[in-house]
Amino acid sequence: MAFDDSKGLAIALEEAKKGFEEGGVPIGGALISEDGVILGRGHNMRFQKGSAILHGEMSALENAGRLDGKAYKNCTMYTTLSPCNMCSGACLLYGIKRVVLGENVNFQGAEDLLRSQGVEVVNMNNQDCKDLMAKFIKERPEDWFEDIGV
Amino acid sequence: MAFDDSKGLAIALEEAKKGFEEGGVPIGGALISEDGVILGRGHNMRFQKGSAILHGEMSALENAGRLDGKAYKNCTMYTTLSPCNMCSGACLLYGIKRVVLGENVNFQGAEDLLRSQGVEVVNMNNQDCKDLMAKFIKERPEDWFEDIGV
Repeated sequence: MAFDDSKGLAIALEEAKKGFEEGGVPIGGALISEDGVILGRGHNMRFQKGSAILHGEMSALENAGRLDGKAYKNCTMYTTLSPCNMCSGACLLYGIKRVVLGENVNFQGAEDLLRSQGVEVVNMNNQDCKDLMAKFIKERPEDWFEDIGV
Repeated sequence: MAFDDSKGLAIALEEAKKGFEEGGVPIGGALISEDGVILGRGHNMRFQKGSAILHGEMSALENAGRLDGKAYKNCTMYTTLSPCNMCSGACLLYGIKRVVLGENVNFQGAEDLLRSQGVEVVNMNNQDCKDLMAKFIKERPEDWFEDIGV
């Protein structure tokens, strides 16, 4: 039986909540194979590590460690927020074929680019993801603008 | 006077050579402002750190640390090799307007994507960059394929 996308998104949301509790940007990601093996999970570490590249999806990829290229090909990247150009590009680099996102109301990333390259993009339109991100942006707009390079 | 691109590429190549000496993938990057200030420089750390995301350009961005979004807008990203989808996406995220690459014979990245988004892409067609990368790919083809997700 295929892995349930709502379970994958729940893991990404757990990561986003950890990030929020740590004082960080509350975006989480999880790289999960089609049979439900979590290869990597993580959250945005801009403030925790002073990192310009550890977005939620990038943390998930980094925490998965070095993998053979084939390992990514049957995976889905779960993310609480529509993936930016960097994170979308990382999915393209590794040939990840599916991206499931929590919402794209608070930020619209490179979904069109992903689709144009044959990636299946699913928007779960999840209220908890929306609420958490909206709360962060309202409380810390300048930190959010910094994160997305504005 | 504008910063000389050949000097920027030379810094990226120094980084690539460091990476080679460390047993890593010999690709280097440098983020340099138009008046010649080096904001960050670095090289691919896949083998040195077991990293899936620290390509040369990503290392340069990471080593630059957290910057205000405006800081990137007058910068050039120098890289010894045509930037992959991830690294190109990172340049788009931060609004980097110029990418100067050493060569695209050993690998052709997302130059078209960059150009389509208004980024100026300059290929220096540098023989030293070509030779170093060709040597690595010849000696360690499997490590190279892993790096580019094949």
